[in-house]
Amino acid sequence: MDKNLKKLKKILYEVDDINNASSLLGWDQATYMPAKGAEARARQMATLGKLAHQKFSSKKIAKLLKKLEPLEKDLDYNSNEASLIRVTRKDYEKATKVPAKFLEEFSNHASATYQLWIQARAQDNFDMVADNLEKTLDYSRRMANYFPHEHIADPLIDNSDEAMTVSVLRPLFADLRKELVPLVEAVVAQEPADDSAVKQFFLQDKQLDFAMMIAQDYGYDKKRGRLDLTHHPFMTKFAIDDVRITTRVNQNDLTDAIFSSLHETGHALYELGVSHDLDRTLLAGGTSSGVHESQSRLWENQIGRSKDLWQYYYPKLQEVFPEQLKDYSLEDYYKAINKVSRSLIRTDADELTYNLHVIIRFDLETDLLEGKIAIKDLPELWRARYQADLGVSSETDADGVLQDVHWYGGQIGGVFQGYTLGNIMSSQFYNAALAAKPQIKDEISQAKFDTLHNWLKENIYTHGRKFTAAEVVKMATGKEMTTKPYIAYLKEKYADLYDIKF
Amino acid sequence: MDKNLKKLKKILYEVDDINNASSLLGWDQATYMPAKGAEARARQMATLGKLAHQKFSSKKIAKLLKKLEPLEKDLDYNSNEASLIRVTRKDYEKATKVPAKFLEEFSNHASATYQLWIQARAQDNFDMVADNLEKTLDYSRRMANYFPHEHIADPLIDNSDEAMTVSVLRPLFADLRKELVPLVEAVVAQEPADDSAVKQFFLQDKQLDFAMMIAQDYGYDKKRGRLDLTHHPFMTKFAIDDVRITTRVNQNDLTDAIFSSLHETGHALYELGVSHDLDRTLLAGGTSSGVHESQSRLWENQIGRSKDLWQYYYPKLQEVFPEQLKDYSLEDYYKAINKVSRSLIRTDADELTYNLHVIIRFDLETDLLEGKIAIKDLPELWRARYQADLGVSSETDADGVLQDVHWYGGQIGGVFQGYTLGNIMSSQFYNAALAAKPQIKDEISQAKFDTLHNWLKENIYTHGRKFTAAEVVKMATGKEMTTKPYIAYLKEKYADLYDIKF
Repeated sequence: MDKNLKKLKKILYEVDDINNASSLLGWDQATYMPAKGAEARARQMATLGKLAHQKFSSKKIAKLLKKLEPLEKDLDYNSNEASLIRVTRKDYEKATKVPAKFLEEFSNHASATYQLWIQARAQDNFDMVADNLEKTLDYSRRMANYFPHEHIADPLIDNSDEAMTVSVLRPLFADLRKELVPLVEAVVAQEPADDSAVKQFFLQDKQLDFAMMIAQDYGYDKKRGRLDLTHHPFMTKFAIDDVRITTRVNQNDLTDAIFSSLHETGHALYELGVSHDLDRTLLAGGTSSGVHESQSRLWENQIGRSKDLWQYYYPKLQEVFPEQLKDYSLEDYYKAINKVSRSLIRTDADELTYNLHVIIRFDLETDLLEGKIAIKDLPELWRARYQADLGVSSETDADGVLQDVHWYGGQIGGVFQGYTLGNIMSSQFYNAALAAKPQIKDEISQAKFDTLHNWLKENIYTHGRKFTAAEVVKMATGKEMTTKPYIAYLKEKYADLYDIKF
Repeated sequence: MDKNLKKLKKILYEVDDINNASSLLGWDQATYMPAKGAEARARQMATLGKLAHQKFSSKKIAKLLKKLEPLEKDLDYNSNEASLIRVTRKDYEKATKVPAKFLEEFSNHASATYQLWIQARAQDNFDMVADNLEKTLDYSRRMANYFPHEHIADPLIDNSDEAMTVSVLRPLFADLRKELVPLVEAVVAQEPADDSAVKQFFLQDKQLDFAMMIAQDYGYDKKRGRLDLTHHPFMTKFAIDDVRITTRVNQNDLTDAIFSSLHETGHALYELGVSHDLDRTLLAGGTSSGVHESQSRLWENQIGRSKDLWQYYYPKLQEVFPEQLKDYSLEDYYKAINKVSRSLIRTDADELTYNLHVIIRFDLETDLLEGKIAIKDLPELWRARYQADLGVSSETDADGVLQDVHWYGGQIGGVFQGYTLGNIMSSQFYNAALAAKPQIKDEISQAKFDTLHNWLKENIYTHGRKFTAAEVVKMATGKEMTTKPYIAYLKEKYADLYDIKF
């Protein structure tokens, strides 16, 4: 191996080790840490974060990247080596272009704003946090201005969805919204689905065992991961062979634990499927928040909430909960887990309305950055958009503009698009898999997921961060990113569920 | 604060953060890590270990220590500041006097020997590992020779029991052995105790709950710690306010989980009792393996296996296990948990015979280092000493010289004395506490432990690593280290239990 590449890898290995250790500290904080361990834990994570940053942003890396330029040109763009050099260069720029002093200031401001937001939301008082949010907007703009850009939001979007831009996202999301608003209207005009089947008492341990059974059938290996309980479900990775998920349980709602677990399983399968050749480098991970979300949503929704899947599992679920489910048919259950309603809260939203919540936030944050709208008008603009898009709006700001942590605990801009990009891509990927392997649908109704899982591994997971989302979509599906398959999927699913024609 | 001291502390804080993160990685490895995470975990721990070592052994520390010399002279020896400088200097010497290359070689050799030992023990074949052990002896001598010493074992002992030497330990242990051998002979000549009370089926969760109840009554706070299951019980610390313990459970022996848990609780109370003023520095921990063991043994044995304590808890234990214990009296149970027998295995040995196992090992490793005895004769020498001291000897080497990992996974010398030093000191400390607060014994029979716990905190725990074991004993008890209180304690306890006179 080239000696400079070897030197580069040696540093990257150490940085990866430190980052993974830091992730374990975070996992423990959310799962098992005793309450009074919190203060020391925050310090320890800060120290490891600083160490990893120091190592990664050192001049040594810049020199090595410079020396590696000729090698990179000689190598195939798709090769692991060229990809490592390319992605390291991008990450290095991101890590070094913003002055440490600015980052520290912004981070301190974000922490203070987060604390204020907790009170503001509890007291339903947007004014309490409005001045801070004004400063957050200013910091976000300054952050973006450290990077060349076409639109002020682009560098912020690039942090989690590399190479995505407002010029791509605006028409994509506008297109989706135009289709979704009437779709939601048509569905909510029908008799609401009866979800009483899932709104009964279901014992925690049985719920967890059932969720884990499906996750394992999907291909989640207990030798390479585990499921724990946390307040908010998440997936976290400490190595390609140690990717863990967490969930929460509501004993009065069967859907919470099962679908959260399948969502996180999707994220985990992505990370577990990265080629071992990329191990211990910054290529060993999902490539963007959008592609990541495409996998969580695919396994949670396209597969997890499909009738095919429950043809196999519903009789088993009835065996586990005979008293609760004996009077409900598969059809009843299928309708219950896919119930649509006008909703105020993004995180509680069903599959159909979910993207409207995201697009509202994307539009508002982009307008804020452009200066088209003002922070002080945010609560009213929020209500107006909810009324227009979802036909409902919150009287309180707590359930309105104050509901999500994102803007109050970090930057404004670039923090929401991944959710909807994920949904859009999930259908593109699933359609491509079905086109290549038509047996997948049949197999799902027999709880066989290998063909689908292998297709996803070969076409998406194995590459890790080698390619951008757009590149992965092109390679895996042969097409550019498009909302058509996703809209078609939703129309077909909800036409059947609510017995309507679109 | 002095600016050099401030600089020193800043580095020590970072080192402490890294070491604590590394400890969490170790805890997770033993508790929850999925099997295939092992390889990456070993790498991550190696990286953090290297980082901490680099930071701590840097020339910067040497320079700061030099600059701090005048300040140290001005300060009270007992002050936190003087102690920090003093102990940092000692640790720095230990970290820098041995060349990194030598340490790496030794560590690689120890890893290889450990792997070989696993096979040798399984096949009951000492010869398989004898050559490696010969090299280990050579490495151990070379390690010791990097430091000035009176006896070749002293620098090795100093690593875990600072300032202890062979010239102190030999007479201390010889004295103890002279008393113990006839004591054990007299006890095992009696009718063996009936331990059928504790050798029944006891459900795991109930055992754990009971152990945790006593631990909490002792003063172990669930907001500052937790109990998990591992193959080998241990205590580990991530911060003064996050000190965790683990245990194992044998559902067919009630004593395993309870007394292992109380043992680890003793270690934990020590770490939790260190003054918060020492937080995040290398003073925030127990001062030596001996003093640490004195606390685990005190809470496990002097308190945990006392009749006073079970007067309170035995009726509660009978409530939890009514079927198993209804026909056994407190007296029956007390005898069962204190049963003495001639034993081959150190880790299974009872309180009375335990120290003979340790002293055999201490004598053999010290003789090996001196060159008085040879590796090849070890199996026979082991048998002879067991026959002489415990009246029993193993036919196999697996249950003889191959039973403990210590020599096969590390150095020969300085690895066993702490266990017996702990027992000796536990009685000295307990007697001093009783002399100062005579109400302690009465309180124990009411499950009140505050007076004892507070005395131990004030006289031992709060100091962390500020003082050596000998200094702590002198300060807490007003006397030098002596075996008298420990021998008196054993004689009184076992005379009563076995109804004999000594």
